[in-house]
Amino acid sequence: MAGIGKRLAAECVGTALLLAISCGTGFAGARLANGEAGLALTLGSAASSVGLAVLILAFGPVSGGLFSPALTLSQAWRGQLAREEALPYIAAQIGGAFLGAAAAHAMFGIPWLVASTQVRSGPGQWLGEFAATFGLLAVFIGCGRSRPAAAPFAVAAYVMAACCFSPSAAFMNPAMTLARVFGSGGIRLADAPACILSQLAGAAAATALFLWLHGPAGRRAA
Amino acid sequence: MAGIGKRLAAECVGTALLLAISCGTGFAGARLANGEAGLALTLGSAASSVGLAVLILAFGPVSGGLFSPALTLSQAWRGQLAREEALPYIAAQIGGAFLGAAAAHAMFGIPWLVASTQVRSGPGQWLGEFAATFGLLAVFIGCGRSRPAAAPFAVAAYVMAACCFSPSAAFMNPAMTLARVFGSGGIRLADAPACILSQLAGAAAATALFLWLHGPAGRRAA
Amino acid sequence: MAGIGKRLAAECVGTALLLAISCGTGFAGARLANGEAGLALTLGSAASSVGLAVLILAFGPVSGGLFSPALTLSQAWRGQLAREEALPYIAAQIGGAFLGAAAAHAMFGIPWLVASTQVRSGPGQWLGEFAATFGLLAVFIGCGRSRPAAAPFAVAAYVMAACCFSPSAAFMNPAMTLARVFGSGGIRLADAPACILSQLAGAAAATALFLWLHGPAGRRAA
Amino acid sequence: MAGIGKRLAAECVGTALLLAISCGTGFAGARLANGEAGLALTLGSAASSVGLAVLILAFGPVSGGLFSPALTLSQAWRGQLAREEALPYIAAQIGGAFLGAAAAHAMFGIPWLVASTQVRSGPGQWLGEFAATFGLLAVFIGCGRSRPAAAPFAVAAYVMAACCFSPSAAFMNPAMTLARVFGSGGIRLADAPACILSQLAGAAAATALFLWLHGPAGRRAA
Repeated sequence: MAGIGKRLAAECVGTALLLAISCGTGFAGARLANGEAGLALTLGSAASSVGLAVLILAFGPVSGGLFSPALTLSQAWRGQLAREEALPYIAAQIGGAFLGAAAAHAMFGIPWLVASTQVRSGPGQWLGEFAATFGLLAVFIGCGRSRPAAAPFAVAAYVMAACCFSPSAAFMNPAMTLARVFGSGGIRLADAPACILSQLAGAAAATALFLWLHGPAGRRAA
Repeated sequence: MAGIGKRLAAECVGTALLLAISCGTGFAGARLANGEAGLALTLGSAASSVGLAVLILAFGPVSGGLFSPALTLSQAWRGQLAREEALPYIAAQIGGAFLGAAAAHAMFGIPWLVASTQVRSGPGQWLGEFAATFGLLAVFIGCGRSRPAAAPFAVAAYVMAACCFSPSAAFMNPAMTLARVFGSGGIRLADAPACILSQLAGAAAATALFLWLHGPAGRRAA
Repeated sequence: MAGIGKRLAAECVGTALLLAISCGTGFAGARLANGEAGLALTLGSAASSVGLAVLILAFGPVSGGLFSPALTLSQAWRGQLAREEALPYIAAQIGGAFLGAAAAHAMFGIPWLVASTQVRSGPGQWLGEFAATFGLLAVFIGCGRSRPAAAPFAVAAYVMAACCFSPSAAFMNPAMTLARVFGSGGIRLADAPACILSQLAGAAAATALFLWLHGPAGRRAA
Repeated sequence: MAGIGKRLAAECVGTALLLAISCGTGFAGARLANGEAGLALTLGSAASSVGLAVLILAFGPVSGGLFSPALTLSQAWRGQLAREEALPYIAAQIGGAFLGAAAAHAMFGIPWLVASTQVRSGPGQWLGEFAATFGLLAVFIGCGRSRPAAAPFAVAAYVMAACCFSPSAAFMNPAMTLARVFGSGGIRLADAPACILSQLAGAAAATALFLWLHGPAGRRAA
């Protein structure tokens, strides 16, 4: 494992690229699909999914390739990450997320430092974000324990499915949610807290389930 | 292998997520694709396929990741599952399927406790469901024996192809068929028995073929 | 390796499922995409690709999973298949192809025993079929030698690309070409010989190139 | 490792097939998608991505499967390729790129020896090409070091994401850029230098970052 400086740099650059991909693909899809939301979703979910897979493969060996405060907290709970490193990790992820979102807006010439006006609220949205994040953590923990080599692909493939099955934006990532309260699309600042709480609740439920399913060894060996 | 309680919980939660993905993706596709059935099918088959792969990876190490009574019966026939466990497995799968279908309807604000009115009947439908399930079991058994590590991906990839080539709904899964007699889309209760019988016939034909192809060792080592 | 009877059965059933998938997906795409050829192509190429991958995984351990006379001849040339088995293999593949094409037409209620009227002729078509089959054999031999475990996925992924980049139908398979001179879509009987010759020329060129690239050891170890 | 003649032949034929796939898919997409740019992009990015993966698998064991002067220079910098071989590699790649672009135009009956009139200029384009190539090299180096067996798939998957998230053409490859100054689509000769410079800057930045992240051992073991 690399030193903490290199690991934080990897989390920051990786999260920035993740946001550049998901945010830039959203802009490209909106521009090219001419209002065909189904096609834009297909394009965006597929690109975000494979983008995430390869970023985990590229940066994972350095820092774990978490790119998300929800995963970071779950890893700390399960003893896979030193607790005192959780906060620096989360800060690096949030910083990277802002960097990547800003770069995507710059690439497409879209103003970034404006408040998002996208409404994302209501029980269906919250249940969707809860279920999507629950599934993400289930795949991350379950596959990460039994088939670690396949985990980057499994996590990424799940992201594609979640983007499609959830009526929410399927951010599943508090850093991504925060970075998208600015600029085009994204989520209104007023709607972000409930969205992030739903994500954390889903992550906690899946972590608890798998700590029980895997038994005591799950805490160490996952 | 985990205890029977944990295994049944894994089958139940996994099947629930499978239904949430396939059913929720269907709703999202219908809403976003604006009546473009080809696009909705592309989206739905791709998301269901990758969703299934990652659920097998996440829950398979606990319970086998069958999520389907047809697979459960085939595994019991081939001696891969204790016969007295087949019935509890099937019950957990059906319960999970109802749970997931209900959750997907709730996420999208669509009434669930109404009878489906979707007609799915006739020889083309039955032949389609038979052929689709035959192929699914062929992939599950054939790849599960020679390349168990690749089997989750192969099964999932096959599901995508089957969703596309069959004129039927390509449920290929009695639990999914039963859970979809309620709510939007799905299948009429009156059409479910013939659909399930076609699935079981396809599963039985493929199981018998591979017991012959693999020879006596197939029963134990598959 | 299984006995010759089981191997021929596996080639026959596998080729039948391959045709059922590619032909049935074509019908579904035409029906659902409402004349949007680009969408039908996306759907058809993706489903055929993943379908082929899983059929190789399912039946490959029994028979090699060739499903094509062009691959069969290349394998015999490179000493990977006993020469006296090439003809029975090809017969089983052609028989399976007819069986699968007939099943796909039956599933969709489309008459099969009529001559195809689809014109596929001219230098662009022949160059396309040559280049597509050249690439297929390059992937089959090149990847089959260095990464045999990845070869089923590589061959299938290539099929998707070839369906997209070639102006021809990218059959790349004489058995599939022959079976599609009947029924809907497919290829006119009069255009089949030049199409098949282009396929065999592309296969021969790639086989010769890789016998040189890999050197003498390529004949034995590929 | 094969002799230099065979390696240059593999780089040349592989790059030619890469251009035939990406260029031919572009023509097919434009023809079939009837002006639906989003669908053409989905088709083109997916086909180019899987095509690249399988070409790396097929030709990589012979020559490394670089197919790009930017990767070639990075490999030489990191000591993965003898410096005196960089120039012949680049020449073979450029020659293959021209060959493949010419073949794709011939297959579709489109004139090739005309100057491209496609404008691709401005800061958004340059930032896009820089970011896309930066990510490509990050994946190539990061994954190539920790998971070499997964690298062909990772690189290819990244290409799909990059085609979607970048407002530029996401050539990420000077040889491809040069070959596309002729014919349909592609890039104007006047815009090619800034595009190639952006690619080389992105490649250099990623190479430098990973030389630091991986430490001194990165130079040898990557």
